[in-house]
Amino acid sequence: MKIIIDAFGGDNAPTEILKGASLAVKELGVEIIAVGDEEKIRQTILQNGIDTTGISTVHAPHILKPMDNPLSIRHKDNLTSMAVGLHLLKDGGGDAFVCAGNTGALVVGGAFIVKRINGIKKPAIGSVLPGDKGPFMLIDSGANIDCSAQALRQFAIMGSLYMKNVLEIENPRVALANIGTESNKGTPLCIEAYKMLKNTPNINFTGNAEARDIAFTAADVVVSDGFTGNIILKMYEGVALAIMGNIKAVFTAGIVSKLSYLGIRKGLKLFKKKMDYKEYGGAALIGLQKPVIKAHGSCDAGAFKNAVRQAVKYCESGIISKISEQVGDLENVES
Amino acid sequence: MKIIIDAFGGDNAPTEILKGASLAVKELGVEIIAVGDEEKIRQTILQNGIDTTGISTVHAPHILKPMDNPLSIRHKDNLTSMAVGLHLLKDGGGDAFVCAGNTGALVVGGAFIVKRINGIKKPAIGSVLPGDKGPFMLIDSGANIDCSAQALRQFAIMGSLYMKNVLEIENPRVALANIGTESNKGTPLCIEAYKMLKNTPNINFTGNAEARDIAFTAADVVVSDGFTGNIILKMYEGVALAIMGNIKAVFTAGIVSKLSYLGIRKGLKLFKKKMDYKEYGGAALIGLQKPVIKAHGSCDAGAFKNAVRQAVKYCESGIISKISEQVGDLENVES
Repeated sequence: MKIIIDAFGGDNAPTEILKGASLAVKELGVEIIAVGDEEKIRQTILQNGIDTTGISTVHAPHILKPMDNPLSIRHKDNLTSMAVGLHLLKDGGGDAFVCAGNTGALVVGGAFIVKRINGIKKPAIGSVLPGDKGPFMLIDSGANIDCSAQALRQFAIMGSLYMKNVLEIENPRVALANIGTESNKGTPLCIEAYKMLKNTPNINFTGNAEARDIAFTAADVVVSDGFTGNIILKMYEGVALAIMGNIKAVFTAGIVSKLSYLGIRKGLKLFKKKMDYKEYGGAALIGLQKPVIKAHGSCDAGAFKNAVRQAVKYCESGIISKISEQVGDLENVES
Repeated sequence: MKIIIDAFGGDNAPTEILKGASLAVKELGVEIIAVGDEEKIRQTILQNGIDTTGISTVHAPHILKPMDNPLSIRHKDNLTSMAVGLHLLKDGGGDAFVCAGNTGALVVGGAFIVKRINGIKKPAIGSVLPGDKGPFMLIDSGANIDCSAQALRQFAIMGSLYMKNVLEIENPRVALANIGTESNKGTPLCIEAYKMLKNTPNINFTGNAEARDIAFTAADVVVSDGFTGNIILKMYEGVALAIMGNIKAVFTAGIVSKLSYLGIRKGLKLFKKKMDYKEYGGAALIGLQKPVIKAHGSCDAGAFKNAVRQAVKYCESGIISKISEQVGDLENVES
C-alpha cells in the first residue's frame, strides 16, 4: 500500500513527520511518498539519520503558512505540499493521504481536489476520541458550521460505517449530541435530525446523548454539526489537560507526594495511555472519494505513525464504496 | 435578610434542603422562609432533629414532578412549592429565592412570575465554574436556545456586573465562546456578536475564547447562547467526572497504590475542593427583577447553604439596578 504524506504539515514538521514515516514503513510494511521541498527533506533525513527505506519523495516548493487563507488551496497554481499531495492522491499516485497541517485548508482541499462521494452533501471530520468505556467517534468535529438535518444523517451513516469497519465495533450505537435526552430537546436542527435519524435504516440510533455522558462513551458515534462538535472536541481536550496538569502539580508538591507517585505511576501511565487521543491516530475526513487522515497538529513521530496506520485501515475497510451504496439507496428511496 | 427557599426542589429534598437552610441561618445570619407542604416539612424537621431557629414556613400543597411540563408553572392554579415561592418573591415576601428544582421550570417561572428587568430581552443562567486559575461565569448556560447578538451582549453586561460585584473580580475579562480566536470564526451569530461586543462600553471584551482554553479560565465571563453554553457546562462536568473516576480507580487498584494515596490525599483533597462547582453555590438567574439562585439538583446541605450565601451576595451587590441602568443607557443610545 502507498501512503502519501505531507512532510511539511504540523508543528513538528518535517523532522517528526519523516521519522514517523520511517517507523510506518518498518512497522506497517507500507510505502511512503513524502511530499514537500526535496532539498529540505534530504537535509532533514541526513541530519537526523532517518532510514529512507520505502520512502520516496515528490517535490512541492511551498509550505502552507498558518496565516494563509484556507481557500487558497483551491488555486491551480498552489504548490504547497498539502495541495500537491491532494492532487497526487486524486490522480492515483497513492492510496491515502496523511497530513498534520491546517485542518480548514485540508477540508477545503479535500472537497475541492479529491471531491466528495456522489450524493454526499458535506464531507465531515470524524475524530476518534478516548471514552471512559472505549473509543468513540465525534462526527462532525469541525468541518461544517452550517449543517442540515440531512447532512447530520449522512454523518451518522458515515460514522457508523467507519466505527464498524475500521474500529471493528459491532452494531455501533449512534447518538445525537444534545442538551437533553428527550426527542423535543435542543435546536430546531436537533429536533429535525432526531426524527430523521430515528427513521434511518442500517444505523443503530439510540437517541440523544447529553454532553455530560459523552466522555463516558454514551455512544460509539456522536453526531453533531461542526460548530457544536468542535466545542465538544476542544472542551474534552481542555478539561482533560487542565485536570491532568493539576494532578501533576499535586504529585510534585513535596517529597512525600513525589514518593507516593512512584506507587501509582504505572497505573497512571496506563490511564494516560487510555486517555491519549494520539493513540488513535488522528481524525478521518469522511465523505471524500479517497481516504484522507488529519494527524494532530502537534503530533510526534509515534503519533504520526499511528495516523498512517489509521489510513491503512481506512483503505482496507472499503467503507468509501459502502458509504456510496448506503447513501445512494437512501436518496433513491426518498426521491 | 429574608431568603425564600423551595423545600421540595432537588434530588435530596426536603431533608438536605432543610438541613442546609438551618446551616444558613447559623452561619450567614439570614432568615429562611421554607415553601412546601407544611406537614411534610414538620415531619422532616422532627425526624432529623433540625434546628428551626430562624426558619418559618409557607404552605404549598404540590411538588413539581420531573415529568411535569415546565410551562405548567405559568398557570394561575399551579400550587407547587416552586410557583408559590416565586410568587412570594414577586410580592415582596422575601429578598431572594433559592431552588434546586427543575431548571427549565425555574427559568419559565422566573420570567413569567418575577418578570424581566425592563429592557432585558432574555434572562440567562449564569453558572459560576471552577477554572484552573480561578472561578469564571458561563452565561447563558442553558436558559435560551435561540439567542440574538443583542441578547448575547446583554449576557456579557450582566455577567460582567455579576463577577465584579458578587465575586469581586476587578475589571472582569469577557470572552465569546467560539471555535477559533479570529473575529470571523464561528456561526453568523458569533460573528455578529463579536462585532457588537467589541463596541460595547463598560465591558472588558477580550475576544473569542476557544473551548480548549475555557477550563484554564480564558476569561472571567464566557458568553454563549444557551445551547452551546449547556454543551460546554455538561462537557465540563462529564469530562471531570470521567477523569476523576479513573484516577480513583488507579489509587484503589492495589495495596501499594492505596498506600501511595495516603501521601497525596491532602493535595488531592484541595484540588477536588478547587474543582468542586458546588463550592460556588449554584447558578444565578440574571436579568430578573429579583435575585433567583438555582442550586445544583444533587446538592447536599452544605452545597445548598452555599447557594443561600450566593443569594445573599446577589442581594447585597445591587447589580439588578446596575443592570437596569447599563442596559437602559445602551438601548437609549441606539434608539
